[in-house]
Amino acid sequence: MGVWSDTVTLVLIPGSALVGIGFALLQWFLVSRVKVTEDVNGYHENLMENEDQEEGVDQLGVVIKCSEIQNAIAVGATSFLFTEYKYLTIFMGAFGAIIFLFLGSVKGFSTESEPCSYNPENLCKPALANAIFSTVAFLLGALTSVLSGFLGMKIATYANARTTLEARKGVGKAFIVAFRSGAVMGFLLAANGLLVLYVSINLFKIYYGDDWEGLYESITGYGLGGSSMALFGRVGGGIYTKAADVGADLVGKVEKNIPEDDPRNPAVIADNVGDNVGDIAGMGSDLFGSYAESSCAALFVASISSFGISHNFLAMSYPLIISSMGIVVCLITTLFATDLSEIKHVSEIEPSLKRQLLISTVLMTAGIATVSFFALPSEFTLYNFGSDKVVKNWHLFFCVVTGLWAGLVIGYTTEYYTSNAYSPVQDVADSCRTGAATNVIFGLALGYKSVIIPIFAIAIAIYVSFSLAAMYGIAMAALGMLSTIATGLAIDAYGPISDNAGGIAEMAGMSHKIRERTDALDAAGNTTAAIGKGFAIGSAALVSLALFGAFVSRAGITAVDVLTPKVFIGLIVGAMLPYWFSAMTMKSVGSAALKMVEEVRRQFNTIPGLMEGTAKPDYANCVKISTDASLREMIPPGALVMLTPLVAGTLFGVETLAGVLAGSLVSGVQLPFQPLTQAGHGTTPRST
Amino acid sequence: MGVWSDTVTLVLIPGSALVGIGFALLQWFLVSRVKVTEDVNGYHENLMENEDQEEGVDQLGVVIKCSEIQNAIAVGATSFLFTEYKYLTIFMGAFGAIIFLFLGSVKGFSTESEPCSYNPENLCKPALANAIFSTVAFLLGALTSVLSGFLGMKIATYANARTTLEARKGVGKAFIVAFRSGAVMGFLLAANGLLVLYVSINLFKIYYGDDWEGLYESITGYGLGGSSMALFGRVGGGIYTKAADVGADLVGKVEKNIPEDDPRNPAVIADNVGDNVGDIAGMGSDLFGSYAESSCAALFVASISSFGISHNFLAMSYPLIISSMGIVVCLITTLFATDLSEIKHVSEIEPSLKRQLLISTVLMTAGIATVSFFALPSEFTLYNFGSDKVVKNWHLFFCVVTGLWAGLVIGYTTEYYTSNAYSPVQDVADSCRTGAATNVIFGLALGYKSVIIPIFAIAIAIYVSFSLAAMYGIAMAALGMLSTIATGLAIDAYGPISDNAGGIAEMAGMSHKIRERTDALDAAGNTTAAIGKGFAIGSAALVSLALFGAFVSRAGITAVDVLTPKVFIGLIVGAMLPYWFSAMTMKSVGSAALKMVEEVRRQFNTIPGLMEGTAKPDYANCVKISTDASLREMIPPGALVMLTPLVAGTLFGVETLAGVLAGSLVSGVQLPFQPLTQAGHGTTPRST
Repeated sequence: MGVWSDTVTLVLIPGSALVGIGFALLQWFLVSRVKVTEDVNGYHENLMENEDQEEGVDQLGVVIKCSEIQNAIAVGATSFLFTEYKYLTIFMGAFGAIIFLFLGSVKGFSTESEPCSYNPENLCKPALANAIFSTVAFLLGALTSVLSGFLGMKIATYANARTTLEARKGVGKAFIVAFRSGAVMGFLLAANGLLVLYVSINLFKIYYGDDWEGLYESITGYGLGGSSMALFGRVGGGIYTKAADVGADLVGKVEKNIPEDDPRNPAVIADNVGDNVGDIAGMGSDLFGSYAESSCAALFVASISSFGISHNFLAMSYPLIISSMGIVVCLITTLFATDLSEIKHVSEIEPSLKRQLLISTVLMTAGIATVSFFALPSEFTLYNFGSDKVVKNWHLFFCVVTGLWAGLVIGYTTEYYTSNAYSPVQDVADSCRTGAATNVIFGLALGYKSVIIPIFAIAIAIYVSFSLAAMYGIAMAALGMLSTIATGLAIDAYGPISDNAGGIAEMAGMSHKIRERTDALDAAGNTTAAIGKGFAIGSAALVSLALFGAFVSRAGITAVDVLTPKVFIGLIVGAMLPYWFSAMTMKSVGSAALKMVEEVRRQFNTIPGLMEGTAKPDYANCVKISTDASLREMIPPGALVMLTPLVAGTLFGVETLAGVLAGSLVSGVQLPFQPLTQAGHGTTPRST
Repeated sequence: MGVWSDTVTLVLIPGSALVGIGFALLQWFLVSRVKVTEDVNGYHENLMENEDQEEGVDQLGVVIKCSEIQNAIAVGATSFLFTEYKYLTIFMGAFGAIIFLFLGSVKGFSTESEPCSYNPENLCKPALANAIFSTVAFLLGALTSVLSGFLGMKIATYANARTTLEARKGVGKAFIVAFRSGAVMGFLLAANGLLVLYVSINLFKIYYGDDWEGLYESITGYGLGGSSMALFGRVGGGIYTKAADVGADLVGKVEKNIPEDDPRNPAVIADNVGDNVGDIAGMGSDLFGSYAESSCAALFVASISSFGISHNFLAMSYPLIISSMGIVVCLITTLFATDLSEIKHVSEIEPSLKRQLLISTVLMTAGIATVSFFALPSEFTLYNFGSDKVVKNWHLFFCVVTGLWAGLVIGYTTEYYTSNAYSPVQDVADSCRTGAATNVIFGLALGYKSVIIPIFAIAIAIYVSFSLAAMYGIAMAALGMLSTIATGLAIDAYGPISDNAGGIAEMAGMSHKIRERTDALDAAGNTTAAIGKGFAIGSAALVSLALFGAFVSRAGITAVDVLTPKVFIGLIVGAMLPYWFSAMTMKSVGSAALKMVEEVRRQFNTIPGLMEGTAKPDYANCVKISTDASLREMIPPGALVMLTPLVAGTLFGVETLAGVLAGSLVSGVQLPFQPLTQAGHGTTPRST
């Protein structure tokens, strides 16, 4: 028994979740005080605060234009997400039914209690109950994931024009609006995820009572629901945003030599919508998926440990208490950016965001120590692939902390390789002088190189946590990396918001000075969006390993020996899967971009006066191309991911499947780091 | 005991090796009958055969020019290789000394015989002897590798101008010259490799007598020597050729809009030299390395099997007899291309080369059956990671045959993905319409996609051979894939030779008609060179696995369990290494290409009359840039490969090292397939 009592969980977990939600709403309120309305009062109020008014620009017209553009982006993003969610609802229903039928049929929809598998003295709930509750948890996870993405998109499209308008008052004000909006998303996601999970556990517990094995096994459905939505959200949104981005730039910037985000470019709205559905909603679902998976994996492994069997609810809730502590820490961290310091110059933006990472990591280290010493028994036993492992509470402290600091290392490395402040990106930009070919060579080389340090960081985190606390340690390391998710997401979401703000400034025809400010916000945002991706990859690697461990434990395998043919071929085919997946998604992006290019060219050629700015382009057609392509093309890669385990497991057995999972894990963690260098495009000037 | 007697090995192995060398020399003689001399007799002789003489081109001048260009290429290639070999001699000496000291010091340079490790009833030779013989075998392997590359380069630079001149008589004649020259290289390499290995074994046997463990363990030095030379030859040559290629094209084709291989381009000689030192000498060393490694791995595993212990020399020599049979099969196969059919139209070139692959594979299947049934005992026992495994001779037949046919599948897949006759390359070419960005996206996607089928082919070969005959099976599958190496290399070397032929035709100012023919030869050659790379990768994957197995056997490990922290971090870091390696080599290519571009631009800007064709460029300076860059830059990636096992093994022990090896194997086999799509550049017209 830890030092705290069970009542701490009753107060701390829901309490911090509610505080997180309250804090998010407060930030939203503060953002909402920037007015984007055509009514003259709001306009005047705005104007009076504006110390930095510029001559020659029609202020009222600009505000109206901003509002119109924001509206177009919000409508495009909402309509895409609704269409996407319509598809996903069908999928969710079908997949939920499969889960129900599969889990239920294992024991013939039995309604009789049976002896538990890990603690045969107790009686466990019947198979039918587990099937029902797992399906419910799955649906809850999927719903929370969708909600996380959707709310993120809402605040992002709400904040982009406000950031633009605040940029008139100075870069510091604009930064705070963008960052606060990012924080809204970060805190809503972290707090919602925690709250839904906590409430589900407590509701399920009413039925399950002392059967914790059944309880936490059905709770894992929550993680599965979250991550399967994340898969489609990420792929669909990713194809959307990249197709629009490439399509818009290729004709606009390259052929027509007009600035990025120029309102004459027909793909410009699609491009900005893409930022919101891909980098905001997609990323939100993604990180939520990792968070839910690692929480569930840790809870499941804990439920068959000594404190699971002895029914120590406080120790069982250790993963949730860590997340609660994370919300509190991130809240304090956010104040450093929004209230305790002020950005006076564009050069301070990136350091300020980096400082957020550092502050949250340092504070969280103390938080983890507190939780580990007060919530965990000083010594307990974990289940470790057939054998038992004795673990001390300070072991767990190190597991969570190495995960946390590995996240910081990955974040800082990603920043180094993607920021225009350092030589890697400058070298790549410099190589453009000799043309696209050397640029691609240098870019790919940089992408490959950027893998090295993160992989070592992940390897160290795995080694420490695996050695100290087996698969529980890995799951907790993943949760450690994600414990500061609210700050991580705030930094990440800040990126697309300021990207949109820059776009709106350009489209609304704002003055050069203001565009310079939004461009600076945007350049920093590209880097921090890459940091967010780095976190997503790092935590995904740890989570996958934890899930792999859970799978292996459940399948009753005690060793996955590379020196057996079945495992080895699994390993080599598994290592190929990320390439197959990438081939599919890249081909999709390429084809959609081609169509986009053709449509944009067609509009420039057939709409008279478009280039001169006297006629309006048909934005909706471009939005439609991206929407159709991403919804159609997200299915094959999604199917590949979901069917592979089924096919490999059914045809070749669990050993090959274990090999496939391990292979795709070690190979898949390398590949996604490479496109991170795309953030280098922040160095190319927006206005050519 | 097999059906044949030991004397078969005495006749068949050296006999087929000598026949192979004789056949190579015959081909060389046939190629040499095409005259490239300024003397008037040779010119007249040539002219008289020429039914296809064109008007308006100074025939004598063209021959002289061809001869001059050929000479420049040959001098450049020879001087680069000599400089490279000078460095490699130092390295070879140092590495040889390390091997000697390391192996000798294990037992304190003991000069006393000891009981053998696998058959303790026998006495084995002292550690000092093993150290000496291993070092000798290492040096022999290194020397044979160097010789293979060098001879290949010699015949290639001898044949390129002859191919050009024969192109005046028709595409069929030119094809035969290029293909015969490729065959010279293929047969010399296969026969030399086999002969040196066979002679070494027989000479070593005089000292070792009955101590076959010691004998075949020291023979493994041959494989190590071959593959360490291959590493540097491949990396050095690869950087050379890519830097020159990119540098020449970027200024010439893109900026100045002059044709590829235009004599006004200062980098044009460096480009053609690069084909010979990279794609010929480098590829030759590479394939020889794989061939030597797989032979040695098979021999070593066999030496501790039942027929090793019972001293059945015929069965022991099974790997060598397979290779002998391969030489005979390839000889027959070559006749199909050179004598039994004739190319009448450019569209027949690629099918004819593809047919070579098919014929050799079909014939070799029969050859493997013969050898397996006559040379192997009907049943024997193999050592399998601590346990014994009973294997039948027809099991071995299947091991070798799956390797062989996996090679064919890889070759045909590679052809499909790199040939301009099929949709993948056409799609990529088509995507250029919308610019470099979509082109890169489609190209990368295609590269990723091209991995899928080869990986399944390799996985099947591994599964079959691993299940049937453990690591011996894997080694024999690798040797099966390489058994038709003479034909594979002939097809592969045909590529750079006809590439050079095209270059010479352009530089010598030959007529449009002739350049059309050499361009067609070249386009097919790009594809077949890619096929050769596919073989190299596939066999390298199998060889690496066999070596991994040999390492694991020798290290006394009985399982490499992914579910242990030490192995897992090895796996994930190992999977990262190919990216690190690629980052280094790509950065090197990029920097060298940058320098090349600057030099070419400088010459165009400062040499008056260069663009008009009245002044000659300074070819030597460009050759020097490529030479310096490749020699300097080949060291860090080479060091990474050689030091990683030492560092991982010393700091983290054999389990982590096993993980690193497995990880880099499964990840490394995916990556190299991707640049194969570069062969798609054969679709872009040479003369713009």
